[in-house]
Amino acid sequence: MQVNFLLFSAVTQLDLTGPYEVLARAPGFEIDLVSPSMEPVRSDRGLTLLPTATFDTAKPCDLLVVPGGPGTDDALVDPRWVDFTARQAAQARFVFGICTGSLLLGAAGLLRGRRAACHWQAREFLSEFGAIPDESRMCADGNIFTSGGVTSGIDMAIKVVAILLGDDAARQIQLQIEYDPEPPFAGGTPRTSPDHIVQRCLDATRKRHAIRAQAVAQAARALDA
Amino acid sequence: MQVNFLLFSAVTQLDLTGPYEVLARAPGFEIDLVSPSMEPVRSDRGLTLLPTATFDTAKPCDLLVVPGGPGTDDALVDPRWVDFTARQAAQARFVFGICTGSLLLGAAGLLRGRRAACHWQAREFLSEFGAIPDESRMCADGNIFTSGGVTSGIDMAIKVVAILLGDDAARQIQLQIEYDPEPPFAGGTPRTSPDHIVQRCLDATRKRHAIRAQAVAQAARALDA
Repeated sequence: MQVNFLLFSAVTQLDLTGPYEVLARAPGFEIDLVSPSMEPVRSDRGLTLLPTATFDTAKPCDLLVVPGGPGTDDALVDPRWVDFTARQAAQARFVFGICTGSLLLGAAGLLRGRRAACHWQAREFLSEFGAIPDESRMCADGNIFTSGGVTSGIDMAIKVVAILLGDDAARQIQLQIEYDPEPPFAGGTPRTSPDHIVQRCLDATRKRHAIRAQAVAQAARALDA
Repeated sequence: MQVNFLLFSAVTQLDLTGPYEVLARAPGFEIDLVSPSMEPVRSDRGLTLLPTATFDTAKPCDLLVVPGGPGTDDALVDPRWVDFTARQAAQARFVFGICTGSLLLGAAGLLRGRRAACHWQAREFLSEFGAIPDESRMCADGNIFTSGGVTSGIDMAIKVVAILLGDDAARQIQLQIEYDPEPPFAGGTPRTSPDHIVQRCLDATRKRHAIRAQAVAQAARALDA
């Protein structure tokens, strides 16, 4: 199994590193991080990762993984990223979008008429790409797996391993990474969090939401053109 | 708050990147990844990260974070790592060991007489450093927080933010990263996993366990000398 992660500037690194830890432990899975060049790539919060392949050297992959983050908003109006995503997805057996990564799948025309999940603060935008927004944490429609915000990628990656290699392989990884989560608080979704916490999140990301709305509108026009 | 993560070769990257994602979202937290030099550092599964400070340039920190992984076994018999850990911890308000990172805390003499958690496959070694092994996923003893394997660092980091900045700040981060985990399987601990899955993990890591036993014995001798 060749697994290609897209690695763009201002990625939310846990969208990538969570599923990476799971998929890299699956027997026979080879992983590349693909970027336009081999230059180091900085996450939205300052963690710097090195790519292992470029748009020119990337292998065709069995599983394409598209993380999210503020950088998605640049990627989905950048024809290089949109075209590369579409091209790689066309050859892949499975495509996996995490968090706002599903918006890039949408911009690449992969979600038309499909159910898809996304970070709760960006889920509404999926319909602009012809997708049917899904509130669940993990959503599979055909060969496209999408998941909710950030940490949901860990759950989904374990599920993907179970589908591809069977339950025992997935359970072994889950035990190796001692994944028996104990979130300190109830919540973690807008439905289960107190209203004032939901409001704090919305207030903190108002500017990002406006930037994203513009990028999505532009990407949707380009897709329909 | 200055937060210093130790970044050594063959780190288990999710031990670091999970808590990083949480702590980097906490208002006023500045994060460095500290390594012997500024050379890129490769995780045990091939993800390459860039340090932001060296042993010589690292600032004193309020919170020292020590991840685990196979690389711990080299670090805990390397006087440079042991001394740096002890030196930074002496000035820190809080010390946070994740997974087998707590073994390095032990080698630095920080766990004598203290309760500490660790990855379930290495927990037994804590007693060689005078610590009292604790089976819980998160363990606080004085200013030292330790957690179980890999993913437990996410839970613990949210708890650390709650302690330092209050519940609302921690809840906001939990909702931003949509941390409402749905592990695909029950299990994730040796107590809750089927016996044959526990056995698969033990079989897969027999060689690593032997290397670790030697490293711990050597580090314990050095500590007592």
